[in-house]
Amino acid sequence: NIVAGIDAGSTAVKLVIFDGQQMGFWQQPTGWSPAEVTHQMLDQALREWTISRGDLRHICGTGYGRVNLPFLNTTVTEIACHSRGAAYLRPGVELVIDIGGQDAKGIQVGPKGRVLDFVMNDKCAAGTGRFLSVMAHALGLDVSELGAYAGGEEVSPQPINAMCTVFAESEVIGLINRGVDRKAIVAGLHHSVARRVAAMIARFDGDGPLLFTGGVSRNEAIRVALEKELKRPVEVNEHSPYAGALGAALIAWEKA
Amino acid sequence: NIVAGIDAGSTAVKLVIFDGQQMGFWQQPTGWSPAEVTHQMLDQALREWTISRGDLRHICGTGYGRVNLPFLNTTVTEIACHSRGAAYLRPGVELVIDIGGQDAKGIQVGPKGRVLDFVMNDKCAAGTGRFLSVMAHALGLDVSELGAYAGGEEVSPQPINAMCTVFAESEVIGLINRGVDRKAIVAGLHHSVARRVAAMIARFDGDGPLLFTGGVSRNEAIRVALEKELKRPVEVNEHSPYAGALGAALIAWEKA
Ligand code: SF4
Repeated sequence: NIVAGIDAGSTAVKLVIFDGQQMGFWQQPTGWSPAEVTHQMLDQALREWTISRGDLRHICGTGYGRVNLPFLNTTVTEIACHSRGAAYLRPGVELVIDIGGQDAKGIQVGPKGRVLDFVMNDKCAAGTGRFLSVMAHALGLDVSELGAYAGGEEVSPQPINAMCTVFAESEVIGLINRGVDRKAIVAGLHHSVARRVAAMIARFDGDGPLLFTGGVSRNEAIRVALEKELKRPVEVNEHSPYAGALGAALIAWEKA
Repeated sequence: NIVAGIDAGSTAVKLVIFDGQQMGFWQQPTGWSPAEVTHQMLDQALREWTISRGDLRHICGTGYGRVNLPFLNTTVTEIACHSRGAAYLRPGVELVIDIGGQDAKGIQVGPKGRVLDFVMNDKCAAGTGRFLSVMAHALGLDVSELGAYAGGEEVSPQPINAMCTVFAESEVIGLINRGVDRKAIVAGLHHSVARRVAAMIARFDGDGPLLFTGGVSRNEAIRVALEKELKRPVEVNEHSPYAGALGAALIAWEKA
């Protein structure tokens, strides 16, 4: 019995293969065609596990690109998948903060990964990975470099006043032109994202386990900024970026 | 007796000179230094009117850049100036929609240009001139070309789903790549701005005279889109972009 979970996000497609014991993880940039990328990844995964497509008993998909994947056996909402995946990665988790390439979510999780409540922003680029990639571009950096670039506690963040991605980009260009330390600017941008996300999840207080998921969870500086903003521990897991696909795989397992 | 009103906006500085009968109008792009630009315009205005700086009895300033203009005799809020200016341009005006380079305002105007109520967006680039300039750039056009480019009623607007400037820009680039008619895209963008502004002023219903002001009022296609969205006549005046500076000049006249 082998199943697959696919999270077709706006920025990356994530794939998890599960046989009841072992799990395999793959991801690739979404590019122009989520369907094509997903096929490539599935082929790669089947080769690496030396299994054939027929061995996959159930494929469950989530993410905004799931509508373009006709071979899925089931599709499940992102909130349900992320919640399930997070509860697997961090047993007892009570709050999930998921920051993806183009959205951000806060999910209150109950027993067995059940969704108690959630908030989501997919309308405004501020507080999402997109904000960070626009700013990385303005700074001539790759978005994957930002976390390390900012440096640690010794850098005091440059306050970024504009919340809007467009206005903040102009502000950052102005700061660069004025010769402001780029490390301080990047640290300020991390705080801007943390502030925005903290405002979004303000009604989810408490102090239970909090797991940070989604592609942006790879940025350790954002995790630290979130801890400061929320005044509670923020955990990540090496598989945090795969939480949605993992949840989809667990749901596929139940269905198979 | 000669007075001046200055509206130091984010995108352009506007100057109005008033001697109780005649009015002169000047404007220039703000660039990096509103103060320098304002000095140049004042010098030019004084030359054209063959008067000297000492002849200006009172200078009243408004706009976000007014804090950088130390030679102002008084400063007045934008809302008050726009309301006064609009009531002068359109006697009996009841609602003003002002769309500037980086903000948008709705002002309910009472007798003598008094402000009854207002709403303002200066936090989000959507529904402001900035949205249009980002999109013009993506289309390889100058923002001043957009209005004429869209064509008239015969073009059916391409719906733009994203409200966010950042996401809408990606959407527009995708539409261009798919070969969608650029005129239809531009028409869709005009409707997007009108929809956003209409949502902002939704609580100001009524059917009295409505004047469209601010730099974006030069775009006739947006005026038409606003009429469709609001289902009421939307007027412009050739001096609509100067409403704020004009209001400032009228206030200066009272003070002098
Ligand atoms: S605030 Fe900026 S980033 Fe957010 S929706 Fe508006 S334009 Fe987009």
